[in-house]
Amino acid sequence: MKKKPVTGMKDVLPEEGVIRNYVTALAGETYSRYGFMSIETPCVEHIENLTSKQGGENEKLIFKILKRGGKLDLSEVKEEQDLVEEGLRYDLTLPLSRYYSNNAQNLPSPFKAFQMGSVFRAERPQKGRFRQFTQCDIDILGDPTYLAEVELITATTTLLGRLDFKGFKVRINDRRILSALAEYAGVSEEKRGLLFIILDKLDKIGPDALKEELLSSDFDASGVDKIMEIFGGGFLSDDPLHKLQDILKDHLAEGCIENLETIMKLVAQVKNADFEVVFDPVLVRGMGYYTGTIFEIEMPQFGSSVAGGGRYDEMIGRFTGTPTPAVGFSIGFERIITILLEEHFKVPEKGVSTAILLEKGLDGEKMAAAMKEAADLRAAGSRVLLVWANKNKKFQKEQLTKAGYDEFREYYREELKH
Amino acid sequence: MKKKPVTGMKDVLPEEGVIRNYVTALAGETYSRYGFMSIETPCVEHIENLTSKQGGENEKLIFKILKRGGKLDLSEVKEEQDLVEEGLRYDLTLPLSRYYSNNAQNLPSPFKAFQMGSVFRAERPQKGRFRQFTQCDIDILGDPTYLAEVELITATTTLLGRLDFKGFKVRINDRRILSALAEYAGVSEEKRGLLFIILDKLDKIGPDALKEELLSSDFDASGVDKIMEIFGGGFLSDDPLHKLQDILKDHLAEGCIENLETIMKLVAQVKNADFEVVFDPVLVRGMGYYTGTIFEIEMPQFGSSVAGGGRYDEMIGRFTGTPTPAVGFSIGFERIITILLEEHFKVPEKGVSTAILLEKGLDGEKMAAAMKEAADLRAAGSRVLLVWANKNKKFQKEQLTKAGYDEFREYYREELKH
Repeated sequence: MKKKPVTGMKDVLPEEGVIRNYVTALAGETYSRYGFMSIETPCVEHIENLTSKQGGENEKLIFKILKRGGKLDLSEVKEEQDLVEEGLRYDLTLPLSRYYSNNAQNLPSPFKAFQMGSVFRAERPQKGRFRQFTQCDIDILGDPTYLAEVELITATTTLLGRLDFKGFKVRINDRRILSALAEYAGVSEEKRGLLFIILDKLDKIGPDALKEELLSSDFDASGVDKIMEIFGGGFLSDDPLHKLQDILKDHLAEGCIENLETIMKLVAQVKNADFEVVFDPVLVRGMGYYTGTIFEIEMPQFGSSVAGGGRYDEMIGRFTGTPTPAVGFSIGFERIITILLEEHFKVPEKGVSTAILLEKGLDGEKMAAAMKEAADLRAAGSRVLLVWANKNKKFQKEQLTKAGYDEFREYYREELKH
Repeated sequence: MKKKPVTGMKDVLPEEGVIRNYVTALAGETYSRYGFMSIETPCVEHIENLTSKQGGENEKLIFKILKRGGKLDLSEVKEEQDLVEEGLRYDLTLPLSRYYSNNAQNLPSPFKAFQMGSVFRAERPQKGRFRQFTQCDIDILGDPTYLAEVELITATTTLLGRLDFKGFKVRINDRRILSALAEYAGVSEEKRGLLFIILDKLDKIGPDALKEELLSSDFDASGVDKIMEIFGGGFLSDDPLHKLQDILKDHLAEGCIENLETIMKLVAQVKNADFEVVFDPVLVRGMGYYTGTIFEIEMPQFGSSVAGGGRYDEMIGRFTGTPTPAVGFSIGFERIITILLEEHFKVPEKGVSTAILLEKGLDGEKMAAAMKEAADLRAAGSRVLLVWANKNKKFQKEQLTKAGYDEFREYYREELKH
């Protein structure tokens, strides 16, 4: 028998478990206040759906499930697909799209969905990355307007605020601005993905290295010049949204900039937590399915983004044939938990925690009395541990104190001691 | 793209989702009051562990995961095990045993664990049975005494009571009584499993059919007579525990009956819900790993058991080499949810739910005002839906009322209307 978890997956110890439960409950409560409805989809998904080119690099990391019974014919195996018809989901967005196409007739429109669940990616094992991890997503399906974005950003930042996160940044951009930029610089459709990947690095590598990398990646020199005019100096340092609107005006989708402005303004006006919302013209986000606004929450003190999302107006149409506007925001649940653990976050306790120590050999009457005392305290909402007293009671109490029990009661065999 | 979930699995609609979340939160809160600590184990488990004969029939229903990359050699496939080294867990008890053997040094002793999670069984699809379902288990590891059983039963029945279940029965037995019975009747070790399976049917088929089935299953006539003396007539109708103690005294493990009596008495004395606890000498429970007390909760009005568990003192020793007493109680989460849905259970609402209807084309100032109103209500704990007004506002309000919104506010473009 093997004692360790399978490669890349982990056992959650109680110290982490209590924080995970707290964040889960707080997410459920917060998102419910925003009218999001809790749904679940299976961990197992059709292999055709998982490999339909929605998932980008994640499609290479799918855990595949072996066919069973009569469907599995080992004498005829030529390739992997002979063995497989199902796999474990790598995110919650693809199952949500399938779910919506399967159940739309029983759902309100717009549909505000809240989904938490395990997803699976067979990544190379490395510190802090797990092959099974929890995602925590909210999505609004059926609303093409900025209201959806504002609700998603407000709900997500409110949740982070309730977890005591402060001073973070919501970065926002629109894929259509990136497309306009590519068009303006004369970059072909095929090379746009590469352009965006390189642009995304600007904050890290600076403008000189950006220019170098663009040129060495065979982008047209004239196009690179146009891009560097925008990103090379101080051009965007003041009012970047309108500067871009001006320079890209022949290429921009109608209303795109105004939409982004409305979102940013409303979020800033109604925000319920300590953060700022900023336009980030080089925010790209990896997934290929985004079609409009994209956003990310950055906490500089933790060196990475803790939430991300955007609009994916075309994905559901691939299931249903009818385009359905959709936008989602996903919190990096595992990242949040890691930060809270590192910060020694304490879950707010409800009242006193009592440990009742029972001497071994207590008679039935005294056991019943101890248990009734426990039952009453528990019914009133307290946490109570009923436990046999060890020989070394001092050490036992120290351990119990560490485990959060701040009050002790003791039941002894002899009448006099109690 | 396929719209339906994979065979045998299901999409959880919001109506069910809200109940699932409520029960999950209530289980977490209730069990926490009893000192159970929340843990998680991966859905994926080593195939060697899953197929180590702990899981009985469930081992035939394992979803197996295809090896990946260099480990998968399709040119050399002779049997299924060449393709597989991991599978999806079929219950939470086996992963808990592995978890405990892996982490015991970082856990208190006794260790009270609460675990909720998805388990997977490739059963033949049928109504009400799903291939992925949630289990909700509490276990106490490291306590060999009746205190563990009393705590498990009290915690579980308290949870059911908080869900408004009434008038149910906790049936309890001890595997060691069944063993003594088999010994008393001269049944060989090999035939004991079969004897118990047949005995388990007594309540359904009655004593005549029981006798017939035992004889036709080639049990010794003298042994069958001894069994029928006990179960054939009114012998156990009064004080069955002591009657059995008397007749089986040469075969019973020491203290076994007294232990059961203590458990039953204490549970009855400290119970926090409307139920009775009864000794059931033909309660068997399927799993082969049980070694002592076994118990089940029956709700006659719903025609089946909704929770079950027992003591499995030998399973953890198979991982660690050191025997560790263990006892667990598992609530049939899906069964509970089905009953609550059938009974039209309403999750208690916290305060008012408000829908704010926004006329399309509202200016920024009014949008901000509407959103601030929503933010304030939400911060105070209310559920608020911000939604664009449809043309048919009457129909929209009817739909929103059905969805639980009991108050409406409206924002119009023109000054006068608001």
